[in-house]
Amino acid sequence: MLNDVADLDRVFHALSDPGRRLMLERLGQGPASVSELGRPLSMSLAAVVQHVQVLEVSGLVRTSKLGRVRTCSLNPVILRSAERWIAERRALTEGRLDRLGQYLAGTADRPGTGTADPAAPDSPA
Amino acid sequence: MLNDVADLDRVFHALSDPGRRLMLERLGQGPASVSELGRPLSMSLAAVVQHVQVLEVSGLVRTSKLGRVRTCSLNPVILRSAERWIAERRALTEGRLDRLGQYLAGTADRPGTGTADPAAPDSPA
Repeated sequence: MLNDVADLDRVFHALSDPGRRLMLERLGQGPASVSELGRPLSMSLAAVVQHVQVLEVSGLVRTSKLGRVRTCSLNPVILRSAERWIAERRALTEGRLDRLGQYLAGTADRPGTGTADPAAPDSPA
Repeated sequence: MLNDVADLDRVFHALSDPGRRLMLERLGQGPASVSELGRPLSMSLAAVVQHVQVLEVSGLVRTSKLGRVRTCSLNPVILRSAERWIAERRALTEGRLDRLGQYLAGTADRPGTGTADPAAPDSPA
């Protein structure tokens, strides 16, 4: 779970780079070594390591080292926190737009029942 | 809908700033003018305008101008695209971890069916 604003800053910053997103896509298939992650990317190993560090600092990726091989894996908990932040704003906005749509459809269906006037005589008085 | 990699770069970059996320939280409640968006933030109007531009370029926010007032609103379609990208990676990883957990629980329930070490002297030889 993400605890503060700075965590979300780091997660969305980590997600904003296409190379890092490609690494995360690979890790969605299962753990991988740093050199495996770098294979499809045209960059130096040093650059790959830097990207992995950004992902690790964000919490999106966990790494462990056995001998000379560092293995990376995706942390779904952090992905879920970022997803939830977006989903909450999206749901609020869609809910509001749905209600507006229903209101507009309702006023279009019932000509003469008034629009912005809450005193419109729609129910039997 | 987001069409290419550069679009997601811009969306996640826009989301990586706490001030911009605060603006999006406000817009989750409904449209607002640029100056309303800047009110809770301790920054100049020029800085607020710059942040709004980043949000607009990302597609997360749409703006319209009437007279001297520019009104901003949240675009849920773009939020949904970013959410979907995260959700797909998260679901893949969680699915894999669930299957691993079920496998491990299965092997724990059935002692003698072999674990990591086939030579373990647990089963009757």
